[in-house]
Amino acid sequence: MQLNAPYLILIGDLTDATYAKTGFGIVHWRPDLVAGQLRFPGCEIDMGVPDMSVAEAVEAGANSLLIGVAPIGGVVPDSWWASIEEAALAGMDIICGLHFKLTDSPIIASAAESSGARLIDVRSPPANIPVGTGIKRPGKRVLMVGTDCAIGKKYSALALDQAMRQAGMKSTFRATGQTGIMLAGEGIPVDAVIADFISGAAELASPANCEDHWDVIEGQGSIFHPGYSGVSLGLLHGSQPDAFVVCHDATRTVISGWEHYTLPSLQDCIDLHILLGSRTNPDIRCVGICINTSKLPADERLDYLANLSEETGLPCVDPLLNGCGAIVDHIVQLYPYRATVHGEIRP
Amino acid sequence: MQLNAPYLILIGDLTDATYAKTGFGIVHWRPDLVAGQLRFPGCEIDMGVPDMSVAEAVEAGANSLLIGVAPIGGVVPDSWWASIEEAALAGMDIICGLHFKLTDSPIIASAAESSGARLIDVRSPPANIPVGTGIKRPGKRVLMVGTDCAIGKKYSALALDQAMRQAGMKSTFRATGQTGIMLAGEGIPVDAVIADFISGAAELASPANCEDHWDVIEGQGSIFHPGYSGVSLGLLHGSQPDAFVVCHDATRTVISGWEHYTLPSLQDCIDLHILLGSRTNPDIRCVGICINTSKLPADERLDYLANLSEETGLPCVDPLLNGCGAIVDHIVQLYPYRATVHGEIRP
Repeated sequence: MQLNAPYLILIGDLTDATYAKTGFGIVHWRPDLVAGQLRFPGCEIDMGVPDMSVAEAVEAGANSLLIGVAPIGGVVPDSWWASIEEAALAGMDIICGLHFKLTDSPIIASAAESSGARLIDVRSPPANIPVGTGIKRPGKRVLMVGTDCAIGKKYSALALDQAMRQAGMKSTFRATGQTGIMLAGEGIPVDAVIADFISGAAELASPANCEDHWDVIEGQGSIFHPGYSGVSLGLLHGSQPDAFVVCHDATRTVISGWEHYTLPSLQDCIDLHILLGSRTNPDIRCVGICINTSKLPADERLDYLANLSEETGLPCVDPLLNGCGAIVDHIVQLYPYRATVHGEIRP
Repeated sequence: MQLNAPYLILIGDLTDATYAKTGFGIVHWRPDLVAGQLRFPGCEIDMGVPDMSVAEAVEAGANSLLIGVAPIGGVVPDSWWASIEEAALAGMDIICGLHFKLTDSPIIASAAESSGARLIDVRSPPANIPVGTGIKRPGKRVLMVGTDCAIGKKYSALALDQAMRQAGMKSTFRATGQTGIMLAGEGIPVDAVIADFISGAAELASPANCEDHWDVIEGQGSIFHPGYSGVSLGLLHGSQPDAFVVCHDATRTVISGWEHYTLPSLQDCIDLHILLGSRTNPDIRCVGICINTSKLPADERLDYLANLSEETGLPCVDPLLNGCGAIVDHIVQLYPYRATVHGEIRP
C-alpha cells in the first residue's frame, strides 16, 4: 500500500477531539505529510495546521483527502459526502480507514473514475487470514493495552519503538489499526477482520523474528470495554506478548462514550492482562505504564508520574512529556539478552 | 430465512466427527428434515442416516444439499466441489454455514442459475450491526460457555430450552452459529461479523424481553481458546447473562486441534467467566454444568455426574443422558419470579 502525500485532513464539524485521533496522530507523527485541515462550521477542534478548502488544497499541491476521524460505528455524517465527492472529482486520492467502503458509494466511485483518483480503504484486511494457531514464535513482543479506547495506545507504541531504536535495540512498530497503518505504511486492521480470525490476524501482524528483535504492537480497544473487548482479547492472545504496557489517561474515570461504565484500576488492568495473556505466553509481565497527563495542572504532571511509579513499582511515563526512556531501561534490565546492539549476542 | 427440507447432508471424506457437528446436530434435533448423507471413500464417520448419491437424493425428493461440516478455517476440500455443482445443476438448494460464500464460486453460481436453485449462506450476518452498547435490557439470559469449541454448547442450549419450556417457563433458544440458525430458523452468526461488532451482534441475538422470559443462548468457542477467544468474550459481554452453564467433555484434556493447549479446570472456567462477565452483568452466576459423558464406561456416567455435583455444589448433567431438569430446578430456586407460568407474577 503506497499513499500519496501531502494530505488534506478532513475533520468536518466534529466537536469531540477524542474521535479525531486519526488526524491528530498524523499531524503529530508525520507533519511532513500534511498540507492542511478541512473543517466545517461548528467544528470545535483545531489540529494546528492551515485551514483549506478542497480547491485551495488542490492549488497547494495536496494529493489526497484523508478522512481524519474515527466516530463510533465507523461512518461519517451525510453532510460530509459533498466534500469527499468534490475532492475525488478534482483528482485527489481519498484515503479512508473506517468500516464503510469508499467503493460502495456509487457517487464517490464515479467521481474517482472520472478523474483517475484512487479510493484507498486502509481498513480493508487482507484476504485469507488464518485462524490463530497459538504456536509460540521467535522474537520478543510488547503490546500496548488500555483501560479504554482512544487513551494513547498508538502514541505510546510509536514513542516506545522510537526510544528502543534510539537505545540501539532492534524494534519495529506493528500497526493494528487504520491510523497506525497510515503511519507505518503496513499492518493489519485487526478490528476489521471477521471475528473468528482476530488472533490469526494478530499473529500475522507480528510475525516470527530474530530472538533479539522487539515488535512494539499497537493495542486496540480494551478488554474492559463493553463494545470492543473481543477485539482486545483476540489481539492479546494472538500477539503472545512477553511484555505489555498499560495505557491510561490521568483524568479519565469512565469509558468514553459508554459513561455508565467506570474504568478499572491500573492494578486490576495489570492483573487481568496477566491472567488472560498467560494463556498464550506464560511469561507475560507488565513492564510499564504510559499515562496521558495533559489534562493535569502543568506543575503536577511529573509528580503524578513519580508517585504512581512509587506505588506500582513500575516505570510510569507520559510519552509526550518525558518519553519512554524509563520503560526502555526497565526492559533492558529484565531482558538483558534483548538489549544487545544489532545482532551481537551476549547470552 | 426459509430453508427447503428434506436435506442431503454432505460430510464428504471427513475422518474426525468433531468437525461434523453441523450434520450430527441436524440429525439429532431435526431428523424429520433429513433425507440422507453424502459420503466419499475414506470417510470414517456415519451419522446413521441412509447413504445417497446426489442423483439418488433427487429421486428420493431431497430439496437441498446441506454442507454438514465445519472444518478449521471454514473451507471445504477442493475435491468436494464437483458434488456441490452436481446438486446445484440438479436444482437442489445449497445450504452452507461456512465462512466462504457460495456466491463467490462462479461455477456454483452458474450451476444454480441454470437450474433455479438457491445458494443460501446461513453464516452471512445481517448488515449494519451496531457496536455493543453495554446497556442493560429487560429479560433473563443464560449463556452456554465451554472449556473448548465443539464440546456441546449448542446441544446443551437446545436441551435446556426444551426442559425450561416443559417446566412451564417462558424461554427461547437463541442461535449464534450456523447449525443453531439452521435449527432455529433465525439467529445471528456472531463469529462471522466484523470483529468490532461482536458484542453488538450478541445484543441483537438476545433482545429485550419480558422480565420472566429466559433467552437460552448458544455459546461460541471458549475464552480459553487461542484461536477463538475474542468471539467468546464479545458474546459474553454482549449477552449480559444473568446465568451461565459450563459445557465440557468428561474425557477431553486438551483443546481439540490445538493439542499444545490444556483445558482449564471447571473451577477456573467458572471463576474466569464470573470475573469477565460481571463487567456487563454484576449478578452473573454459574447455574450448572453440562458434561458430555458419552466416552465414559456406561456404568460410570451417572456416578461421575453425581460426584462432580457433590464437588462443585452445582447441578451436573449430561443433557443427552439424564436431561437438563436438575439445572431447571436450580434456576427456579435461584430466580423464583422467573418460574411463574406465562405472565402470572408472584413477586
